Amino acid sequence: MNDVTFIVLGASGDLARRKLLPALYAQFVAGTMEKFLIIGAAIDVLSRDQILSETKLFIKDIDEGQFKKFSERFYYQELDFADADGFSRLNMFTGDLEKKKGLSGKRLIYFATASSFYCSVTTHCAASGLAVKKEPQDTVWHRLIYEKPFGYDGISAHEINACIAQHFNEAQVYRIDHYLTKELVGNIALVRFTNCVFEPLWNNRYIDNVQVVVSEEDGIGDRGGYYDNYGALKDMVQNHLLELVALLAMEAPEQLSGEYIRQERARVLQKLRFSDIIFGQYEGYTSEPGVRPGSQTETFVALQLYVDNPRWAGIPFYLKTGKKLDKKETVIHIKFKQVDCLLARKCPSDTNYLTIRVSPDPAFSLTLNAKKPGVPNEVVPVNMDFCHSCLFGEAIPDSYEILLQEIVRGEQAVSVRSDEIEYAWKFIDSIDQTEVPLYMYKPGSSGPKELEDFAYKHGVRLRS
Amino acid sequence: MNDVTFIVLGASGDLARRKLLPALYAQFVAGTMEKFLIIGAAIDVLSRDQILSETKLFIKDIDEGQFKKFSERFYYQELDFADADGFSRLNMFTGDLEKKKGLSGKRLIYFATASSFYCSVTTHCAASGLAVKKEPQDTVWHRLIYEKPFGYDGISAHEINACIAQHFNEAQVYRIDHYLTKELVGNIALVRFTNCVFEPLWNNRYIDNVQVVVSEEDGIGDRGGYYDNYGALKDMVQNHLLELVALLAMEAPEQLSGEYIRQERARVLQKLRFSDIIFGQYEGYTSEPGVRPGSQTETFVALQLYVDNPRWAGIPFYLKTGKKLDKKETVIHIKFKQVDCLLARKCPSDTNYLTIRVSPDPAFSLTLNAKKPGVPNEVVPVNMDFCHSCLFGEAIPDSYEILLQEIVRGEQAVSVRSDEIEYAWKFIDSIDQTEVPLYMYKPGSSGPKELEDFAYKHGVRLRS
Repeated sequence: MNDVTFIVLGASGDLARRKLLPALYAQFVAGTMEKFLIIGAAIDVLSRDQILSETKLFIKDIDEGQFKKFSERFYYQELDFADADGFSRLNMFTGDLEKKKGLSGKRLIYFATASSFYCSVTTHCAASGLAVKKEPQDTVWHRLIYEKPFGYDGISAHEINACIAQHFNEAQVYRIDHYLTKELVGNIALVRFTNCVFEPLWNNRYIDNVQVVVSEEDGIGDRGGYYDNYGALKDMVQNHLLELVALLAMEAPEQLSGEYIRQERARVLQKLRFSDIIFGQYEGYTSEPGVRPGSQTETFVALQLYVDNPRWAGIPFYLKTGKKLDKKETVIHIKFKQVDCLLARKCPSDTNYLTIRVSPDPAFSLTLNAKKPGVPNEVVPVNMDFCHSCLFGEAIPDSYEILLQEIVRGEQAVSVRSDEIEYAWKFIDSIDQTEVPLYMYKPGSSGPKELEDFAYKHGVRLRS
Repeated sequence: MNDVTFIVLGASGDLARRKLLPALYAQFVAGTMEKFLIIGAAIDVLSRDQILSETKLFIKDIDEGQFKKFSERFYYQELDFADADGFSRLNMFTGDLEKKKGLSGKRLIYFATASSFYCSVTTHCAASGLAVKKEPQDTVWHRLIYEKPFGYDGISAHEINACIAQHFNEAQVYRIDHYLTKELVGNIALVRFTNCVFEPLWNNRYIDNVQVVVSEEDGIGDRGGYYDNYGALKDMVQNHLLELVALLAMEAPEQLSGEYIRQERARVLQKLRFSDIIFGQYEGYTSEPGVRPGSQTETFVALQLYVDNPRWAGIPFYLKTGKKLDKKETVIHIKFKQVDCLLARKCPSDTNYLTIRVSPDPAFSLTLNAKKPGVPNEVVPVNMDFCHSCLFGEAIPDSYEILLQEIVRGEQAVSVRSDEIEYAWKFIDSIDQTEVPLYMYKPGSSGPKELEDFAYKHGVRLRS
């Protein structure tokens, strides 16, 4: 992460203080960054010290001496996103600093802003020279990082893509999904494709269904104004859950890196077919700040989809996510088909799962049938476990740290390609949300009771 | 185990004291036996008290009161195996006791004798009426149990089979292999056929090789006179190891019981093809009591064989067993084929094993490739474990207890059918033992050093 200028547009916001600056600090402490600059910009009249002291609240086990050294590389500039001249001034300020500090001018420009600004700010960046079009072979690179949500629907995502493409090469663009950087998500691909024991089973002949479950304990917090316009389907399913589906369902890429993985993920996303859905809303949601009274926005989604390709034909994927649930967990269940159990006298029905827990405590486990000791031909379910953190300790870096590292390295696997994002939106657009029933659920529960009817209707046992 | 007369021929021997009587006592304490008789017979002039007090040495945590009650059902009769009249007297004695005690006359006759007596003693049993030919539908059954080794080669095994068949139905005959009753061996079949995740992989497309390893710490003890005429190949491989191969390699039986399993095991044993072998002998073996000076008998075997059927064509099976090794363990390693590892930057070569530990501490584990945390695209081997005893405690009954229970229940899966045993001997006969190199090894080692050359020659990593 050396010789890089990190430019954070929206530096006064939550993401900068909570995630980006703490991640950069951690990398600084880890010794991966020596020569660097961080330039924050936002409309607010703020001192750099204010931002830094707020950032400190989100750093565990801070080393004051190190933080002071880190702080010396941080600058703050006021910037109105609508003011073209402001971008020119920021560019000059940045260039002067780079010269003074002996940096070569590699720039990582992080859009920590609402998606509605993406097109105009991108245009200002290009016009001002803050970021310019570069070719892959250029050693001094400029990279642009866009957070989710990227657009509001297929049309808006396409417009932003078109806007960006006028000024920059796709290789400079990172539409990031921080789920894509989680260790276990990287692990999914490695486990699938470097173990002979899984890949042969990874298809509709042996898999009965796939379940992707992202449970959150928190409510919407102070994000009501944003969230009420998006809802769980667009805030979570469109990006995180669909990208997990893409990773699980994709064909083996030629190499486990950038363009190859994105190509295979896009092929899956292109073939998604919506099938059934229910919505939920936690009780009290409409009283949250920023939420419209009587809002029908969903905070919970359960949906069934299919991947219409030869590998997955006929196999349902179940996606489930919600806020204010009874736990915070991201987990994937691969349910293998039941074998004819006439062989044994008694067979439990809920076995033969491969469970991949993404967070917390990354782990794999395989639920198998085994013989019940001392009893002839009776089987019981048992677990084979592999706990990531048990083996490797808690040393798994934060996803934003990995994200920034990979972007600096130019690893595009962490980025959602323009067509991927449009396919994902196209899938979301194919759901007529006005027709989806909305059920209430109690905060701290496992979701609406009507989820049982949904599961019963599809003859599936939904796991949490 | 109720209403059964247990007749132990060879009651003065090791097996009776060490295994059979303790197993019957344990079942008595467990409450599964109420009405029963145990009649021991042997040539030795012994009192029943002598046998009982010697038996007590092999019972852990004895309850004296219970043992006294148990002892009351035990009788001892002198019997010369060459004396036809002796068998008639034993039959009358048995019949009288059964009448007096109100037993219906179901008899389990255990041949705890050398295999050279099997034919003559079987004939005497039939002639005296101690055991008579019964049809499967008869409620009062007579069953004959033969220990391993059953014969000395294919011809002798065939002769014993023919001799038995003259007097009894195959359904009455139990050629037992106490490995077949081990929980985990029963488990192999259940795990294979009730888990969709293994059966699709169980063939030459996905499996690279199969290794069956039976390591013993003990030497030959006081069995030199017997052992020196047999050697490891006939004492261990012919029965235990080949039966494990049969269970691992067999096709799915129609039901997980008796005749169906034996049919499938026999089909495997019929298709065994010997390929390569080395012998070892532990240093000091020729000084053991009962061993001929300069004996060339092997106490260690490593061999390669093939199962010539469509499922296993081209896949080597490695069998390894020896005495005075560095551990006591029975373990099976299924090595899955390496996947093209170009996908990852670095791949460990020794992963993708399913390991089934039969004893001690029955367990399954699967060695997989997983992602090394924090490092892109590097994989490390990890284990997914399922430990039988961890889950179920140590409550797994002794194999002889299960064996006797299953024979009383009429479960023929614990018995090696006449054709199975002849196929196994035929395989052993196909090895020209005079041509096999014999290498010395140190007691307490992992076998002869030349094992490495054997492994190298076959391009396999042999696990212990």
